[in-house]
Amino acid sequence: MTSRLEPGEFELIARYFHGMVRRDDVELGVGDDGALLTPPADTRLVQVVDTLVADGHFPADAAAHAVGHRALAVNLSDLAAMAAEPAWALLALTVPARDEAWLAEFAHGFQELAARYGVALVGGDTTRGPLTVTLQLSGFAEEPLRRSGAWPGDRVWVSGDLGAAAGGLRAWQAGWRDGDAHELIRRFLYPEPRCDLGAALAGVASAAIDISDGLVADAGHVAERSGAGLSLVSAQLPRAGALMRRLGDEDALELALRGGDDYELLFTAPPTHDADVEAAASRAGVAVTAIGDVTAGSGVRVDDQPAQGGYDHFGDGRP
Amino acid sequence: MTSRLEPGEFELIARYFHGMVRRDDVELGVGDDGALLTPPADTRLVQVVDTLVADGHFPADAAAHAVGHRALAVNLSDLAAMAAEPAWALLALTVPARDEAWLAEFAHGFQELAARYGVALVGGDTTRGPLTVTLQLSGFAEEPLRRSGAWPGDRVWVSGDLGAAAGGLRAWQAGWRDGDAHELIRRFLYPEPRCDLGAALAGVASAAIDISDGLVADAGHVAERSGAGLSLVSAQLPRAGALMRRLGDEDALELALRGGDDYELLFTAPPTHDADVEAAASRAGVAVTAIGDVTAGSGVRVDDQPAQGGYDHFGDGRP
Repeated sequence: MTSRLEPGEFELIARYFHGMVRRDDVELGVGDDGALLTPPADTRLVQVVDTLVADGHFPADAAAHAVGHRALAVNLSDLAAMAAEPAWALLALTVPARDEAWLAEFAHGFQELAARYGVALVGGDTTRGPLTVTLQLSGFAEEPLRRSGAWPGDRVWVSGDLGAAAGGLRAWQAGWRDGDAHELIRRFLYPEPRCDLGAALAGVASAAIDISDGLVADAGHVAERSGAGLSLVSAQLPRAGALMRRLGDEDALELALRGGDDYELLFTAPPTHDADVEAAASRAGVAVTAIGDVTAGSGVRVDDQPAQGGYDHFGDGRP
Repeated sequence: MTSRLEPGEFELIARYFHGMVRRDDVELGVGDDGALLTPPADTRLVQVVDTLVADGHFPADAAAHAVGHRALAVNLSDLAAMAAEPAWALLALTVPARDEAWLAEFAHGFQELAARYGVALVGGDTTRGPLTVTLQLSGFAEEPLRRSGAWPGDRVWVSGDLGAAAGGLRAWQAGWRDGDAHELIRRFLYPEPRCDLGAALAGVASAAIDISDGLVADAGHVAERSGAGLSLVSAQLPRAGALMRRLGDEDALELALRGGDDYELLFTAPPTHDADVEAAASRAGVAVTAIGDVTAGSGVRVDDQPAQGGYDHFGDGRP
């Protein structure tokens, strides 16, 4: 039908990905009907997929470089949450037109991050339509982390700080451009996947998830999968200085709890592993903060009150 | 941002996929940050991805059942062309709204085909936006076929018949609803991936590709990758009776050459393998037809004239 690009278009687009990562386990990449890959022996494969829709997951006027970074970062974050080592990417790109400058910048943003984590782009598909980026990643995990392993008595930890990305979205939408706003917008546009931390937590953490929907919502997923409760202390939540200064304590806390787009790791570990957690964080070069405990029961409590995740701050009317 | 569905929405949507295929190599499917999978030892992994955009790759008013079938079929066809055994699927589904009836029918169309080929849906992502279906499949291949193995002197073969899907699209757009038109529309909406044939051709064929862009265009890909020419004889091209009756000889030939959406296999094999090719086709229960030869040189010739693929029949102005 008519919305296809030219046959073989993905091969042309792949040429924008200069200096692509080469891996010995890729026998055949872009250019055949599929990629031909050799997984390492005795390891498990982890597969993730995420779609970004323009004006849904990123502003349609965001720089293409940031969109390329983000498409890879949000998928790397899922691999990080499972302690998987990234390997191969397949890119399904739907674009309204073949815009050379946009594609070059998108590829550049993607490649910079791909090079840091050794991700090879091994295939893809290009179609014409409303701007949508779907990326599928595969990685390897010897000791994968899951959402389901939290146990009453475990401590709840979080990496980095929370709420800055949601603050950045608010700053972007409001047109703020001061220094603090700029820092928050950078945090929104360029999430940093915690791959090194995830890998270091294999065998140390009891459960993990990446925070994409917001702390409370994602804590809820761990609680549900683990058949336990998560009790969080709001005063313990790490929040960036720029967020506190620009939005004030109350809004900063709300965004840290429910803002989403953090792409930090939420994980649990028995208190006997405290030193191992700190050592893993130190090796990965990422700060971690204990923010609560796993309890018997179910659901998420914040300061001993039942808490719900949600998106009501973004005006789409959902609870 | 606002176009997300609810957190965990993909888990809800996965529930529509009743009677999902279970596989022993799936340790963790839908419901965590990623799928956890165990590839068989000593085999290679083949990964493919394809996006379908509404009104680009299927009519937006096509039955959801057909869309679900098609999303899987076009990806299975890519695996078939590499002689790979299908295993795992990840589904990235962008929908304008959560339409329960549409989702149930989509899932039903997908599942019927998935069950036939043992494909387990192991993960996915759901977002709100213009209807777009991206499916990523993984399969296993011991002796993968490639586009690059054709050698001068090889015979060129094609499975099934050609042009019927393009005829079906024309019938759909024209509103024809007689018996022949109905048959052509069925061929367009429900492509049949040639997985069994692909598997049977491992070690028999020298090169293979699936015909999605049209015979001439895809023959061109084999020619380019193999560094050879493909010389085809138009009188040999298999064409469905319904296509010939409904469109006449001239249009039927044009659609067989350049119509696209056939999802048949084009493959090459040395003449000494003729009996093996016929035996493979017989095992797979699919007709195959010799339609030409691989030559020295480059490009595709039809009846000794240079030929180009393209989409000019579909009114988008491209060559």
